[in-house]
Order: sequence, then structure tokens, then C-alpha cells
Amino acid sequence: MSLLVVGTLAYDTVETPSGKAEEVLGGAATYFSYAASFFGPVRLMSVIGADFRPEDRELLAGRGVDLGGLHVEPEGRTFRWAGRYEGDMNVAETLDTQLNVFADYAPKVPEPFADSRYVFLANSPPAMQAHVLDQVSDDAFTVMDTMNLWIDIAREELDAVLQRVDLLIINDQEARMLAGESSLIKAGRAILEQGPNAVIVKKGEHGAFLFSREFFYAIPAYPVETVVDPTGAGDSFAGGLMGYLASEDRVDEASLRAAMLYGSVVASFNVQDFSLGRFKEIERAQIDERFQEMLRFTAHP
Amino acid sequence: MSLLVVGTLAYDTVETPSGKAEEVLGGAATYFSYAASFFGPVRLMSVIGADFRPEDRELLAGRGVDLGGLHVEPEGRTFRWAGRYEGDMNVAETLDTQLNVFADYAPKVPEPFADSRYVFLANSPPAMQAHVLDQVSDDAFTVMDTMNLWIDIAREELDAVLQRVDLLIINDQEARMLAGESSLIKAGRAILEQGPNAVIVKKGEHGAFLFSREFFYAIPAYPVETVVDPTGAGDSFAGGLMGYLASEDRVDEASLRAAMLYGSVVASFNVQDFSLGRFKEIERAQIDERFQEMLRFTAHP
Repeated sequence: MSLLVVGTLAYDTVETPSGKAEEVLGGAATYFSYAASFFGPVRLMSVIGADFRPEDRELLAGRGVDLGGLHVEPEGRTFRWAGRYEGDMNVAETLDTQLNVFADYAPKVPEPFADSRYVFLANSPPAMQAHVLDQVSDDAFTVMDTMNLWIDIAREELDAVLQRVDLLIINDQEARMLAGESSLIKAGRAILEQGPNAVIVKKGEHGAFLFSREFFYAIPAYPVETVVDPTGAGDSFAGGLMGYLASEDRVDEASLRAAMLYGSVVASFNVQDFSLGRFKEIERAQIDERFQEMLRFTAHP
Repeated sequence: MSLLVVGTLAYDTVETPSGKAEEVLGGAATYFSYAASFFGPVRLMSVIGADFRPEDRELLAGRGVDLGGLHVEPEGRTFRWAGRYEGDMNVAETLDTQLNVFADYAPKVPEPFADSRYVFLANSPPAMQAHVLDQVSDDAFTVMDTMNLWIDIAREELDAVLQRVDLLIINDQEARMLAGESSLIKAGRAILEQGPNAVIVKKGEHGAFLFSREFFYAIPAYPVETVVDPTGAGDSFAGGLMGYLASEDRVDEASLRAAMLYGSVVASFNVQDFSLGRFKEIERAQIDERFQEMLRFTAHP
């Protein structure tokens, strides 16, 4: 298996009904790679500033995350995000975004990463995602995320990238926006027409749908009693999903169904604490336990 | 099997993004009994006014609904409800409610109905539900619905009825309100402590949860592309669920899981047209087809 992620490493300041966390390790590539690391090694590409804490780098390296693609801007400052969650924990209110070193990031895939078989393009400008696709193998299983901002201001570039990836993973609001359809079922099917072979629509506490040309699959979310902080849930979902697929080294209907459940389970741990708090307390065994629970929760009559 | 429902027969005026329907046949007991009639005979108790249309009575009778418990108030007017659905089709905005003959309804279970093995107490004042429970067999499998109004103004009576039923079926907002818990998972588990042996929480397009002392079960909704009118979806769900249970004459984990899927499927037809429009076009075979689809949509890896 060889799994590559390209995206942000960040410091987040997050407020939720459970409390506040300041300047904690976050970013899409952080959550993705930690989540995927439960299943095997991960290759990471990102950019950080001189302020990136050595212990955070060690944390990732200690999880088997290959930092050979981590670019340091000695004069720069690491990406910052600040946000707040209230009533509906599915939607973050962004209070501040500072792209910092990420603003001028031109990801260059290092030679040893070029043969990666599984590639995740975390949320970033579509042109940046396209630039990464140019540098990886045509045979790679490519997966992308995006966000409302790019649907708004970079639609043409986004449409072009959509044509080139195997799987799009987005949330329900983004799916509706991308398809211009208020029905989520219509939206998922319409996005399939726009290029990708499959679309996963994440619905937070309501689970997720997978639309492909061959089958439709729906799962509930793992039932978490208290969501402390949903930040990174989507990237943790993608990390669990792709970590599992890469570890099986097989993408078919059965592995995708299992990967959806693994993604959901991994995300269910992530939301139980701020930053990587809960991830640091668990091992693969606990993930497999919840996976078995999910099988029981959804078992057929 | 002997399945009894007590609840409203009504004339509804409904506005949705798809259009408007005026003075169409509705009411909880209407939707429930038509939905259950796909699985077998139904006994109905309700009250109507002299304005109730003969063809509506014939429609139900023609479905094998025993109207032996239908009381006619010759001077009275049938229950009326008017509502509107906008953006979030899960929530109706009530424009008008006229209880009319239902205001003074004191349901008297006819002798031939007293041995009913399955009893559904549709949404109505808790004292009225208790009065029905007094008249049916202690061995009956009893199921109830309720609404925010009774949680607000008749909490004590409601709590007393909750202690006496086997299963409570409510929607997500009501569950949160009844338990005083914003987490739906906590809410479901908390309501179990309040009396019923099982609780089903309906989440509209997001499916449903079943909480019991023995197991937890989660299903997605059947993926409907266009929801024309959600009125009656909850009662159709309950009708499909109890119709199936009564036809199997068995309540255990396996039959409850299957019943949840049948409820969901029957509701998925109901929302595809106003009033009973879609129900009138289908037969049991189409329900079984969607049931099989649901098994595929949720099949394990």
C-alpha cells in the first residue's frame, strides 16, 4: 500500500459547547494522516512555517507518517483557522482563516512519493489539486474533497478536477450547492454525471451516502452521545476510509462498503475530543470494536 | 392478527413546494390504516362529522379497514388541519387546526375490537390514549405516538401513558424535547428509562433509530428523489411497521428490524404525492420491491 495525502497542517482555535481549544494541532492533512495511520503508513505533503512545533512533527512521524513531502518556509507562519460550533454541530462558523504559508504553496511531489497508489487531495484550491494530479500515477485511486468557497469562485477549475478523480467526498451542503439540487439523492446522482466514478456525501450525525454507477450505499453515523468538537471529522472519515482501502489494496463494492463503515467509526472517535485528543488514546483494536458494533447496529432482519 | 388504530380522520389543506391540496383526506388513523392495509386487515376507531364524504369511507372499507369503531356525530364537523412545508420538508408549519368532533371524543372500544393483539394510539391527548388502554387486553402489543403540544401541556398524563405502552414512536424534535437532551442518542436512551420497552425516533429523510433494552438499530430512509408532501409520513411509517408485525404476529428483534424497514418503505411511497395519492397506485409487490432495495442499500461488506 502507498497512501499519499496533500493538504494543510494547521493550528486551530475552536470553541464548542464543551469548551475552547487554542492553537491546537489541526488541518485536513493532520486529521487525515492520523486517521489513516491506524491502518498503515501514510505519505504526507504539506507546508508549514518556522512556528510549527517540533513535538507536532514528532507526533505524526511517530505514527508512521512519512514527512518526506513536508516543506518548511523558514520565514513563514503555519496556516491558522479559528471557528465556533453552536446548536447545529454539523456546521462550523468560521471566525478567522489565515492561509499564511499555504497561500503560495506549489506542491511538488517528491520522487519517492510519485508511485503512490492511493492519493487524497484534501480541500484546497482546485488548481492546486490539479497540479498534484499532474505529478502522480494515472493508475492511482484518486480522491478529493472541496468546499463551498471553490464551488463559488473557482467553478471551472473545480469541474476540470472532478473529471480526473475517482471519488469525491463532500458534505451534504456542498453536494446540494455543487449540483444545484435541494434533494440530496438527486444531487448525488447529478454529481456522478459531472465526472467522478463515485461520490460520498457526508451528513454528520446522520451518516453518509455512497453513490456510484454500480450501487448505492447508506450508513448511519456511529451513535456518539456527546460530540465535543466536530473539527476534522470529515478528514478523519476520509483517512479511515482510504487507510482501510490502501491496507486492503483493493477498491470494489465490498471494500468500499467496509471503508465507509471504517471512515464513520474513525470519525466517531475524532469528535469525542478537541484536536487529536481522542485519537491519541485509542488503538486499532478499539476501531475494530466499533466496526463490529456498527455491523450489529445495521444488521439485517 | 388483529390490529387496532385509534386516531383522527381529517380533511387537510396542505401547501408544499410541489403544489397545494385542499380538503383532501388525511388524519393519523387514515394514513396508518391505509399503510397497514397492505399487510392485512385493520380495525379503526375514530370520530367524524356529517360532512365526511361517503367515498372516503368506502375507500377505507375497500382496503379491509373495519369501520365498526367509527363514530359519526350527525351535528358535527370532521377534524380539519391546514399546514405548509417550505425549505426543510421535515417540519410542517401548522396554519390551522380545528378539532371539531375530535374535541369531545371519548373513544369506546367496541366489544369485537377488545381482543386486538396490536394497538396503535395515534397522536391525541394522553388522557384519551390512557382511556383506550383501559379498554384493551393487557397482553396487546401497544404502540403510541405523541406531539410537542402534549409534552408541553399534559406532561404528567403523558408520563403515565408512557409507563403503560410497549413502544413509543416519535420524531427527533419530540424526542429531544421529551428527554430534555440535545443529543438524540442520549435522548433515545433516556426515554427508555421513562417506561416504554422500546423507542423509535424518526428522522425524516435521515432515517430512524430504534432503541430497546436489548439492541440498537439504525436505518437510512428509502432514498426518494422528490418529496411532494410529507404529511402522514410518520403515521404511514407506523402503519407499515405495525401492519408487518401484526401479519407476522411476532415481536422480537428480527421482526422489529424488518418492521422498521417496512415502515420506512411504506412512508417513502406516502411522501411521493399528496394525501393517499401514491398509496392508491401501488400494491404489496411494490412495497416488497423497495424492501429488497433497502436490503441492498444497507447490505454489509
